[in-house]
Amino acid sequence: GVLERLGAGEVVIGDGGFVFALEKRGYVKAGPWTPEAAAEHPEAVRQLHREFLRAGSNVMQTFTFYASDDKLENRGNKLTFTGQQINEAACDLAREVANEGDALVAGGVSQTPSYLSCKSEDEVKKIFKKQIDVFIQKNVDFLIAEYFEHVEEAEWAVQVLKATGKPVAATLCIGPEGDMHGVTPGECAVRLVKAGADIVGVNCHFDPMTCVKTVAMMKAGVEKAGLKAHYMTQPLAYHTPDCSCQGFIDLPEFPFALEPRILTRWEMQHYAREAYKAGIRYIGGCCGFEPYHIRAVAEELATERGILPEASEKHGMWGSGLEMHTKPWVRARARRDYWERLKPASGRPLCPSMSTPDGWGVTKGHAELMQQKEATTAEQLRPLFQKADCKH
Amino acid sequence: GVLERLGAGEVVIGDGGFVFALEKRGYVKAGPWTPEAAAEHPEAVRQLHREFLRAGSNVMQTFTFYASDDKLENRGNKLTFTGQQINEAACDLAREVANEGDALVAGGVSQTPSYLSCKSEDEVKKIFKKQIDVFIQKNVDFLIAEYFEHVEEAEWAVQVLKATGKPVAATLCIGPEGDMHGVTPGECAVRLVKAGADIVGVNCHFDPMTCVKTVAMMKAGVEKAGLKAHYMTQPLAYHTPDCSCQGFIDLPEFPFALEPRILTRWEMQHYAREAYKAGIRYIGGCCGFEPYHIRAVAEELATERGILPEASEKHGMWGSGLEMHTKPWVRARARRDYWERLKPASGRPLCPSMSTPDGWGVTKGHAELMQQKEATTAEQLRPLFQKADCKH
Amino acid sequence: GVLERLGAGEVVIGDGGFVFALEKRGYVKAGPWTPEAAAEHPEAVRQLHREFLRAGSNVMQTFTFYASDDKLENRGNKLTFTGQQINEAACDLAREVANEGDALVAGGVSQTPSYLSCKSEDEVKKIFKKQIDVFIQKNVDFLIAEYFEHVEEAEWAVQVLKATGKPVAATLCIGPEGDMHGVTPGECAVRLVKAGADIVGVNCHFDPMTCVKTVAMMKAGVEKAGLKAHYMTQPLAYHTPDCSCQGFIDLPEFPFALEPRILTRWEMQHYAREAYKAGIRYIGGCCGFEPYHIRAVAEELATERGILPEASEKHGMWGSGLEMHTKPWVRARARRDYWERLKPASGRPLCPSMSTPDGWGVTKGHAELMQQKEATTAEQLRPLFQKADCKH
Amino acid sequence: GVLERLGAGEVVIGDGGFVFALEKRGYVKAGPWTPEAAAEHPEAVRQLHREFLRAGSNVMQTFTFYASDDKLENRGNKLTFTGQQINEAACDLAREVANEGDALVAGGVSQTPSYLSCKSEDEVKKIFKKQIDVFIQKNVDFLIAEYFEHVEEAEWAVQVLKATGKPVAATLCIGPEGDMHGVTPGECAVRLVKAGADIVGVNCHFDPMTCVKTVAMMKAGVEKAGLKAHYMTQPLAYHTPDCSCQGFIDLPEFPFALEPRILTRWEMQHYAREAYKAGIRYIGGCCGFEPYHIRAVAEELATERGILPEASEKHGMWGSGLEMHTKPWVRARARRDYWERLKPASGRPLCPSMSTPDGWGVTKGHAELMQQKEATTAEQLRPLFQKADCKH
Repeated sequence: GVLERLGAGEVVIGDGGFVFALEKRGYVKAGPWTPEAAAEHPEAVRQLHREFLRAGSNVMQTFTFYASDDKLENRGNKLTFTGQQINEAACDLAREVANEGDALVAGGVSQTPSYLSCKSEDEVKKIFKKQIDVFIQKNVDFLIAEYFEHVEEAEWAVQVLKATGKPVAATLCIGPEGDMHGVTPGECAVRLVKAGADIVGVNCHFDPMTCVKTVAMMKAGVEKAGLKAHYMTQPLAYHTPDCSCQGFIDLPEFPFALEPRILTRWEMQHYAREAYKAGIRYIGGCCGFEPYHIRAVAEELATERGILPEASEKHGMWGSGLEMHTKPWVRARARRDYWERLKPASGRPLCPSMSTPDGWGVTKGHAELMQQKEATTAEQLRPLFQKADCKH
Repeated sequence: GVLERLGAGEVVIGDGGFVFALEKRGYVKAGPWTPEAAAEHPEAVRQLHREFLRAGSNVMQTFTFYASDDKLENRGNKLTFTGQQINEAACDLAREVANEGDALVAGGVSQTPSYLSCKSEDEVKKIFKKQIDVFIQKNVDFLIAEYFEHVEEAEWAVQVLKATGKPVAATLCIGPEGDMHGVTPGECAVRLVKAGADIVGVNCHFDPMTCVKTVAMMKAGVEKAGLKAHYMTQPLAYHTPDCSCQGFIDLPEFPFALEPRILTRWEMQHYAREAYKAGIRYIGGCCGFEPYHIRAVAEELATERGILPEASEKHGMWGSGLEMHTKPWVRARARRDYWERLKPASGRPLCPSMSTPDGWGVTKGHAELMQQKEATTAEQLRPLFQKADCKH
Repeated sequence: GVLERLGAGEVVIGDGGFVFALEKRGYVKAGPWTPEAAAEHPEAVRQLHREFLRAGSNVMQTFTFYASDDKLENRGNKLTFTGQQINEAACDLAREVANEGDALVAGGVSQTPSYLSCKSEDEVKKIFKKQIDVFIQKNVDFLIAEYFEHVEEAEWAVQVLKATGKPVAATLCIGPEGDMHGVTPGECAVRLVKAGADIVGVNCHFDPMTCVKTVAMMKAGVEKAGLKAHYMTQPLAYHTPDCSCQGFIDLPEFPFALEPRILTRWEMQHYAREAYKAGIRYIGGCCGFEPYHIRAVAEELATERGILPEASEKHGMWGSGLEMHTKPWVRARARRDYWERLKPASGRPLCPSMSTPDGWGVTKGHAELMQQKEATTAEQLRPLFQKADCKH
Repeated sequence: GVLERLGAGEVVIGDGGFVFALEKRGYVKAGPWTPEAAAEHPEAVRQLHREFLRAGSNVMQTFTFYASDDKLENRGNKLTFTGQQINEAACDLAREVANEGDALVAGGVSQTPSYLSCKSEDEVKKIFKKQIDVFIQKNVDFLIAEYFEHVEEAEWAVQVLKATGKPVAATLCIGPEGDMHGVTPGECAVRLVKAGADIVGVNCHFDPMTCVKTVAMMKAGVEKAGLKAHYMTQPLAYHTPDCSCQGFIDLPEFPFALEPRILTRWEMQHYAREAYKAGIRYIGGCCGFEPYHIRAVAEELATERGILPEASEKHGMWGSGLEMHTKPWVRARARRDYWERLKPASGRPLCPSMSTPDGWGVTKGHAELMQQKEATTAEQLRPLFQKADCKH
């Protein structure tokens, strides 16, 4: 089990974010970001699981992000599959591929439109319960409550998950400034541990080094409170030095122009090393991670884990495959110090290196964040376009 | 057939580069860049074909890049599959997926280490012949000679391909400065057409707008010579404003730190439009292209083609899926002018926007470019490392 | 007097930094940064005073930066003028030009090598006393203790200055992180006010917006302590988003490659506006300021001050002189919104937008900061070069 | 004389551009760029001459840029001095300071609004004649026809200047693409030499390395034609990799946001070396040059010239003055290789590194370029503003 591995001091490598990877492959719609592909195009989801497994992932996370019924139906998102069908299909795919190696299966729930729309604790918990019933029936190995902007909703999720008796991990999508209500990372972590989480940390919204910093603040908070936990990070694969408290959502490039921010494999190795040094042992990724990013994590920690992932056969440490290149000046790049020193150019001289984030200063409870089942109308869009143009 | 479609003025959309996409997925080794995955991991190759098909590709190109025996064995690249096995597997996969839609299958050959090592015309042509025998036996729809740095070798390839009676396309990996021996794009195109090519153009090595410019020079040369041809581009998905005549190979970021240069989908739509305006009708991609890049080409030319690709159901024109986002300031991005105006930031304030290319001023015929079957030794690498460090 | 003007709510515009401006003109040596030009080349100093006066400066600050005897003789700086000669000449020049308008004359002292070398309070105060004797004899209008990295030394200076009965201004060269011993801006300001300063603020080391932010923190501290003061900023004319607690000294570009960081006149107008909004009324500049930067401050605050500076006759608000340009597309730039929106390019695609600051983590009291009368030897430089190269 | 010095293979160092330097000091109006300060504020002009002399300039160029009557009165530029008064005052100032050292005095004429407005050869030549009469009466040492966008007008100027019997230098403000009518640099140079110029080259509009490249093309043209000449460059002190044929005028940052493009002293040393290597012996500067830039040229060529300029006493080669800095990590920068390797950051992460130039595709002869005596009206500006906004 995951707690045994972490308890023994082992590194557990997570996987990468499925919604972004499968959006690029043509199976997920940016905007709703819902995981119907598990039921609709299982071969695509299976293949991505397999690639992460080959890259070194120890966990196959069920592709159930935003797979609660209130999200699947939000704002006119018309799907031909029910939440239950999607959750079941996702569990089966994760287990099938996990069994091709010795990976664990983790069932995941995430934040809900209901919470944002000020529904009650009971209503929100019922939504989590419905997903978890599937996970228990499919006998996943452990549970993850991930991608919560408000620690309060995450606590509710942890409480529902904890009741199953399975190990529980909980990650917020926050940075050093804390959650959307201003609760600090340290305090967030303490509340999650008290709610029953065995593993705490952050996922998504910020770049790797910011996430390591945030989890270090969480760890300090937990230790100061005399509590115990394991720690995890599943950051973006995008550089976000310029984002504010809501992370990359607020960057003007989100979600269709983030390419120049993608981390290289070498930057990913740096992340893995720094996360390890900070005492984090569950190390994975989120949006933007492709299989080779996870492979980089596994290669950086090959000594600590005593193993290289299967896909490293197609890489070689520090790009040693370049020794076979036909051009001598490319063979000259087949070494660690070359790639560690390199400052990669953007190739975009007309573009800046940082942006000014959006963000309208609203969070749960504001009228502007109330969700609806109906599609957004042109009348609803017009004032949004105007407001945005005034800011720029 | 491809010539009928082009002859009728239709747009033919190519696919993207398999070696780079599959390297990130863990199935191709950077350095040798050989396509053994067709035999070794067919499910991965099949899935990528399928994603390009869904994205709008009209051509399934066999994954046979560098699949000549002299390349498969170069510099210690030890494989458990023969060239024939790989070429056969690649043909079967391409045909299988092509039949899921109405795509054509194209068999491809590329430049050889033998030419670089100054082998004779006869020897080089024998290598092409061996690959083509498989293509003919598998009955591909047409043939592509692609990724040639020297027009002379491309002419030899075209002559071998033409002898089969199949339609022949030929692309060089050159920019506006011409081939490695200094032959201009216009003259290169004329020689390829005279050698028998029905379609001429460029692939790889340069960014989309540079490739469009180069093909425009080819078209002008062909027309000036009173000849006729169809035109194609399969460029990189990387911005390369800073590269010299050998293209992105010479950029210090090649091949493991090119991330900041990746084009967005909007930049890809711009490429599709400009290629179309320049009279190019075979429009595809090469290294760096992911399925969503091809989808962007297909969406830009939806009116001209009278069809949207299947994967656009998961996108919406100009990112309209964002109308379903929970945050109002992200819904405000669900429109064309927002994305067209955006200058995406790199998120890398410590990095420059351009690099100084390498390139040792050598080409076919220089001792430094002689290839070998044996692995590169540490003794051979040492002077390369030193020479490279002196340049920086 | 200055206090009457500030007390009446008037804006007092300072001048710019003389050592950097005169270094570029060939009269000050970068490194020692001492003001012997006041005695050596009075015509150059007089001309610079005059340019600032024409640009709108209300204060002619004596060019006596680092003009204490211990600094004039530090590390082999061989001068043919005594501290007294320099201080006297500087007072005469400032008064001569001040009388050409209605400007005030301020005598300035700055931090000493003696403090850095751990000399006693008595010794350090004697150094200030020696300079101030000249200022009193020359009857300057008020006194400024400026460019202190440690609030303790600034307090000593203020105490010596206060004893003269003249109004006293005190500025530290610190940022939001506080002084070199970690004292916060708020606490620094309270200590300076308690020591007798009438006006407190910051100068040098950081860019305009950082200085406004720091002075705002000082103001909040003073007000929280129930004290009263006037506030001033004399920032750099360089953008320094990347610097750490010791400011631009630690940037690798200091002092000979700061050009790309120079603020435009429009950025300077923005600074003037933000400083005014923050309640700062003594608004001037330091290193990097040229006369046109001060003119921009005066133009931005023309309405509040009820006057345009003499040199604006050669400018016109918001660049209206461009209406006389021969090219129509340049005349199209003769307006405010054009310049306010512009994001000026660096013209340096091979350079980054930020640097990693140096800084060896030492401050007053460390052996590495002990000063000496003798010139630095080659033996002393060698380990410094090696240490620096290791860091990069 | 200048020809004797150049004939003996000596380096002649020019000065920098007065209009830009004095605009920053508050004496020249950006837009008309006329030199009334020579009569209005002689002390400011004298001081700038003196600074260039101290920095190593061998030539004091009269501050008579755009001092033809048709320009002094263009577009509502109301001056209280006549062209003759300005030209006379400028000659006196140049001579006075030249005599403080052993510099030569050069009288300069530049392009006229009359030519742009399609006046006849006679009319244009009369304008030059009027200025030259003053130069001859004041007995300048040689004459410069500078800042011509059309070689035709420059030829007319050279013919007028040549008639005086004085040595004649002629510089166009063009780049590698040639003059505004498309005449190549080589052909331009040949025409100027044939018209009587002893020294030919370029000034203004482009950055140093572009100017060196352009003059190299001129030299090749002259030599190919079997002619002889001396060569000169007086480039901008701004990096302009992004500009088109009309140079920095067309950059959106012209003239009020060019700061990030200013060359460092080390980049200027590189320019001096490359100019020297290209066979250019008259090496000076234009807009953006401050005295320290000329000093850098003189320091780079100290060995060739056998002398260091007076102002180098306040610098030290390669910044050796930093050996006296109080901070050890700044003393570590007192060396050549540190500054040569440094890639200076812009400090502007929200800005790009290149811009898209303006330029409306018009030149001499187009209605849009007809000049007028009356001030530009608001009615005339409105369509310009609109046209410019449409382009952005």
